[in-house]
Amino acid sequence: MPQDKKKTPRPRAETPKGFRDYFGADVTERKAMLDRIAAIYHLHGFEPLETSAIESVEALGKFLPDVDRPNAGVFAWQEEDVPGGGRGDWLALRYDLTAPLARVAAQFRNDLPSPYRRYAMGPVWRNEKPGPGRFRQFYQCDADTVGSASVAADAELCAMLADALEAVGIARGDYIVRINNRKVLNGVLEAANIRPDQADDVLRQIDKLDKVGADGVRQLLTVGRKDDSGAMIEGVGLDDTQTQPLLAFMTSKGADNAETLANLRAAVGASKIGAEGVDELAQIADMLSALGVGEDRAVIDPSVVRGLGYYTGPVFEAELTFEILDDKGRKRQFGSVAGGGRYDGLVERFTGQKVPATGVSIGVDRLLAALRAKGLSGSDTRGPVVVTVMDRERMADYHAMAAELRDTGIRAEVYLGNPKNFGNQLKYADKRNAPVAVIQGGDEAARGVVQIKDLILGARLAAEVSHEEWKSQPAQTEAPREDLVAAVREMLARW
Amino acid sequence: MPQDKKKTPRPRAETPKGFRDYFGADVTERKAMLDRIAAIYHLHGFEPLETSAIESVEALGKFLPDVDRPNAGVFAWQEEDVPGGGRGDWLALRYDLTAPLARVAAQFRNDLPSPYRRYAMGPVWRNEKPGPGRFRQFYQCDADTVGSASVAADAELCAMLADALEAVGIARGDYIVRINNRKVLNGVLEAANIRPDQADDVLRQIDKLDKVGADGVRQLLTVGRKDDSGAMIEGVGLDDTQTQPLLAFMTSKGADNAETLANLRAAVGASKIGAEGVDELAQIADMLSALGVGEDRAVIDPSVVRGLGYYTGPVFEAELTFEILDDKGRKRQFGSVAGGGRYDGLVERFTGQKVPATGVSIGVDRLLAALRAKGLSGSDTRGPVVVTVMDRERMADYHAMAAELRDTGIRAEVYLGNPKNFGNQLKYADKRNAPVAVIQGGDEAARGVVQIKDLILGARLAAEVSHEEWKSQPAQTEAPREDLVAAVREMLARW
Repeated sequence: MPQDKKKTPRPRAETPKGFRDYFGADVTERKAMLDRIAAIYHLHGFEPLETSAIESVEALGKFLPDVDRPNAGVFAWQEEDVPGGGRGDWLALRYDLTAPLARVAAQFRNDLPSPYRRYAMGPVWRNEKPGPGRFRQFYQCDADTVGSASVAADAELCAMLADALEAVGIARGDYIVRINNRKVLNGVLEAANIRPDQADDVLRQIDKLDKVGADGVRQLLTVGRKDDSGAMIEGVGLDDTQTQPLLAFMTSKGADNAETLANLRAAVGASKIGAEGVDELAQIADMLSALGVGEDRAVIDPSVVRGLGYYTGPVFEAELTFEILDDKGRKRQFGSVAGGGRYDGLVERFTGQKVPATGVSIGVDRLLAALRAKGLSGSDTRGPVVVTVMDRERMADYHAMAAELRDTGIRAEVYLGNPKNFGNQLKYADKRNAPVAVIQGGDEAARGVVQIKDLILGARLAAEVSHEEWKSQPAQTEAPREDLVAAVREMLARW
Repeated sequence: MPQDKKKTPRPRAETPKGFRDYFGADVTERKAMLDRIAAIYHLHGFEPLETSAIESVEALGKFLPDVDRPNAGVFAWQEEDVPGGGRGDWLALRYDLTAPLARVAAQFRNDLPSPYRRYAMGPVWRNEKPGPGRFRQFYQCDADTVGSASVAADAELCAMLADALEAVGIARGDYIVRINNRKVLNGVLEAANIRPDQADDVLRQIDKLDKVGADGVRQLLTVGRKDDSGAMIEGVGLDDTQTQPLLAFMTSKGADNAETLANLRAAVGASKIGAEGVDELAQIADMLSALGVGEDRAVIDPSVVRGLGYYTGPVFEAELTFEILDDKGRKRQFGSVAGGGRYDGLVERFTGQKVPATGVSIGVDRLLAALRAKGLSGSDTRGPVVVTVMDRERMADYHAMAAELRDTGIRAEVYLGNPKNFGNQLKYADKRNAPVAVIQGGDEAARGVVQIKDLILGARLAAEVSHEEWKSQPAQTEAPREDLVAAVREMLARW
């Protein structure tokens, strides 16, 4: 239906709520980071996979069309009804990169190599209430190995994660990959006689170790604890013989992997699943060592609790350990930028068959923020050389100058706005962050020369000196027309 | 609502109809091509812009929420109602990259440099009936200059398009950028006394020049014409004094731009808008020459009619001129891979203010298909070196081998499946397209050696010789463990 111009008011030019636009360096910096990560994944034998943004709601799984609003959490809609009867399918935008992997692994299970190592990078969508810094479209960057039950796959992911962090510029010593194992926790829960229905609650309390300390957690696990406001937090109701293995687990991190593993063996006691978990961690430690990844880069650390509820075997988390200043100028650790682990049932929903899988996901926005905070995002945010237009009739001459510069690899453009007001051209060059402007009026053309203006120096002088002084400064030089490229190149090399 | 396992049947693992998954080289080849194009756009001063996939239906414009099915042509859905009253907004997936540019140009008009040169690359979505080779998600790759009325902007886009095609590997001579101008056509229509309501019909007939020849078009413009089946096609009803300028326009392509421009001046007669159009083309020809783009790369060609109905000034189209074999083995020209031109009213819907703009769009899938047809898609489709597992207890050793190879830049991985059946490992390596397999059993480990297997040579020998002979061939060599990297490197260098 064509728009009725008389009735329809002008549409609002607004990014929809919860979404954002990325301009210039926003795009190139993220791309450069993801390219470096992809190169590391490729080197490790991982293959890219790009599924479409849209999946059937049925395949996505968590969200079913038999409720009133199937799009809780996802953006979903129903296809048109099928001609001749039958309701249309429900489709939805993917909310992560794992659900599409599950669908692909099931659909192409006879064609894909097994194990299947794949990486995926791209936007995902969440139909959630937007908030400050919380967007409804954001990037994920995942690597998964589907079809391998061996912890060699987990060790490889941890090593690859460390390599990827260094590839994007995080220095050794500024990050640590911490590794734990759900099976060890299960062993400890067994050793502590924790009922299955208590497990989640126990996990939640253990996760507060950082905040309330070991004794605080012991109180929370037993009789309860007064919080800072004086309010009483109810305890889980365990007795001291039960808390003992839990506290041993929480505090089992030793001076090195060997000591940690010994402490963990003690903590799991006679539990078989616990012993299996410790063995797996020992194997991972050996393999990391063989992969050339020292304990300064990836280390066994039982304090990694986040994700333990979801994963079924090894879990890992990458943390940036350097300090940055938060919004209020206070120093704080940057924190987690990636996590992953082993999970079951990836393909099972589709085929009924259990397929072991392990994967890692890098928080793209957080890692990019970290690189920016450290001045490592690395993209050249300088604009192009701007060839200004003094004489509208000589556009071809100006185009030729820009083409000559580009032919030698120098980013350059001709001013394409209305050239009447020269001040506007310089304002434009400033907005473009142009380092150099090229100027040739009729007089210069007659003399066969060009003026080359150093806009970076110009801006500095302008900030420091008066307008009159600035005009006489050497931020502008004259060069013969045939020396244009050399003169610009020399000026660009100043900065 | 959690999934009820008893009632819900297993979901189908299927890519939704009209969508597709991209694996491995599908992803890397497209990415390599787009990276090369982006580098050319960047060199010309264009800035990347990445908007979110989702826009308000209102901003997208063509599709309004006041009809029963606002998602005709687009994927659209209504947000949840606003708490406390009010219906939710209609959102939709973008169907191209121009509509989001219009929204951004209006929304950020006070912040963006003017003129604003931007490029955008990414998927777009169309809610259309899928067909063979027609997908509901596909890539677009656009460059536009917003806010410049100068044809210098059009000339720049044509030159940049030619540069981009060469950058991805299309040889000079294998493509041509053809340029026409809607204003010239308007002048010709004026010279021919064509009523406005006849213009579209006239344009449609002119577009048949390739199919029916000049005399056929003359018939279609006047009394009508019998088609191949003998059926009579009704004519537009013009007289011969009217068809004369139209035919002059259609056949005005001369031996070079100068001749073409002279012919066009004759065809537009006394029309002022026509003369303006010819002047613009003459300026574009001059500027292309200044930009170092010869007539073998970009040429004035009045036979470019496609898009003339939509664009308001210069229009251009890039065609690949080499022949490929079609599905039935017949030779045919590859045809158009990009097009663009000048259009009005980009921002006007939002602000009421006319902003001149010109842009070009590359058909990503078509260009990639062309590169593949010419063997130019360029990505390395070889798999990684596969380190096989003979002894499960020595995974750390195998990891160390893979790590050593990777440290020197060789793509390598350890087999992570169940190692029991060695044949499966070789089948895996084959599926991975691995060039080399590394093997070290207990015996080799004891002797401090590794076996290096040339899988490419092996496959060739297997195709040509018997299994027994194949076993004795030198596709496999033994090397000291410490020479692993050198031996693999030497084998990789064979191919």
